[in-house]
Amino acid sequence: MSATTEPDETTTEPGDTGYAATDRTTPTRARERASYDRDVVHAILDEGYVCHLGFLRDGGPVVLPTLYARSGTRLYVHGSTGSRPLRMAGAEDPGMPVCLTVTHLDGLVLARSAFHHSLNYRSVVVHGTARPVRDEAERAAALDAVVDHVVPGRAADSRRANAKELAATAVLCLDLDEVSAKIRTGGPSDEPEDISLPYWSGVIPVARSYGAPVPADDLAPDTPVPGYLASLG
Amino acid sequence: MSATTEPDETTTEPGDTGYAATDRTTPTRARERASYDRDVVHAILDEGYVCHLGFLRDGGPVVLPTLYARSGTRLYVHGSTGSRPLRMAGAEDPGMPVCLTVTHLDGLVLARSAFHHSLNYRSVVVHGTARPVRDEAERAAALDAVVDHVVPGRAADSRRANAKELAATAVLCLDLDEVSAKIRTGGPSDEPEDISLPYWSGVIPVARSYGAPVPADDLAPDTPVPGYLASLG
Repeated sequence: MSATTEPDETTTEPGDTGYAATDRTTPTRARERASYDRDVVHAILDEGYVCHLGFLRDGGPVVLPTLYARSGTRLYVHGSTGSRPLRMAGAEDPGMPVCLTVTHLDGLVLARSAFHHSLNYRSVVVHGTARPVRDEAERAAALDAVVDHVVPGRAADSRRANAKELAATAVLCLDLDEVSAKIRTGGPSDEPEDISLPYWSGVIPVARSYGAPVPADDLAPDTPVPGYLASLG
Repeated sequence: MSATTEPDETTTEPGDTGYAATDRTTPTRARERASYDRDVVHAILDEGYVCHLGFLRDGGPVVLPTLYARSGTRLYVHGSTGSRPLRMAGAEDPGMPVCLTVTHLDGLVLARSAFHHSLNYRSVVVHGTARPVRDEAERAAALDAVVDHVVPGRAADSRRANAKELAATAVLCLDLDEVSAKIRTGGPSDEPEDISLPYWSGVIPVARSYGAPVPADDLAPDTPVPGYLASLG
């Protein structure tokens, strides 16, 4: 991978296993749920398919769901050159201020009291400037990364983008720099005086599940299901 | 429910089954995937647990995951009075510009070409002004709505919030007015010249699944699992 594609992580000092907290990545509440650990942040990002990308349009906030991929300490978001955020980021120099958030729901937390109902979740929030990737090789690598983010191993088992398709694909790059994770796990936190109330309390686990692959209508009937799909689920 | 809690939907004209499209809710691309149908929008909202709430902080975009509930054509978001967006919305008059987005992932779409890889999804994007709910009765009703949004029927089977808890709960209200859904379904859209390529193509269905309820550590062992939990999954 070219030097422009992936930041050099070898400059990381021994013992430096986390992102630095900033004012924007320090929660006002439940700080004990925040994490800046690099592995924690990366694992949450790698498990997601959809991020929610926030940016400004005419001075107001816009939040759109979109595909993304992580490559080292860099995120890529891609889309049509005609899509709004990608056009906007390309028109701005040095880029577009964004906030990119990925959230996994892990459980419904039912407390005895309505007040203490909650969700178990893992989320990552990234603040930064999304810059358009203009280098052809990095754009092609980013497209591979997005496809491999959806299904690891798939980029090599598909027809690579041609010049026309690459020209129609806009890619934004966002450095993982100002980033934090927030995690809630465990059971409900009821008030001591509520423990004896007659209400059931606990957690309903929530997870993502995959169904059996559904072949395309025009797929030749004898086409085998690739082995890398077996790793899902 | 009080008149302030739920907008009167009976004023809807016969045949008016949708939200009006605006410049902000008209996508620049794939307009055939957009829907303004009231039932479609509401169903997507009702199926979600987490929304991504976008707002401005110091002029920059922030996107945070949060619980929400729908009541008629109104959304409620609640949180601690100490949380940042809820404090900010309360400090602004007449409210805070927000964009609230809910997304469900339904499938991974694997095309023969890297370029046509996609996701099947259903999303709703709401633009508007989030206003703090100051009326005590509406705040209590909103908290019930959020609990019942997590598990229908649960609000009545838990200890209602007391005055101290209600005072510590900030609730924002967002009218469903400028809102649109976007939906992708079906298989991959490969180029005709790619159909004969030897790559598998199709869709991997993705869904949310629920695990068996996990009782709280301090729950009395003979506490029955309530019947409304059986409706999940």
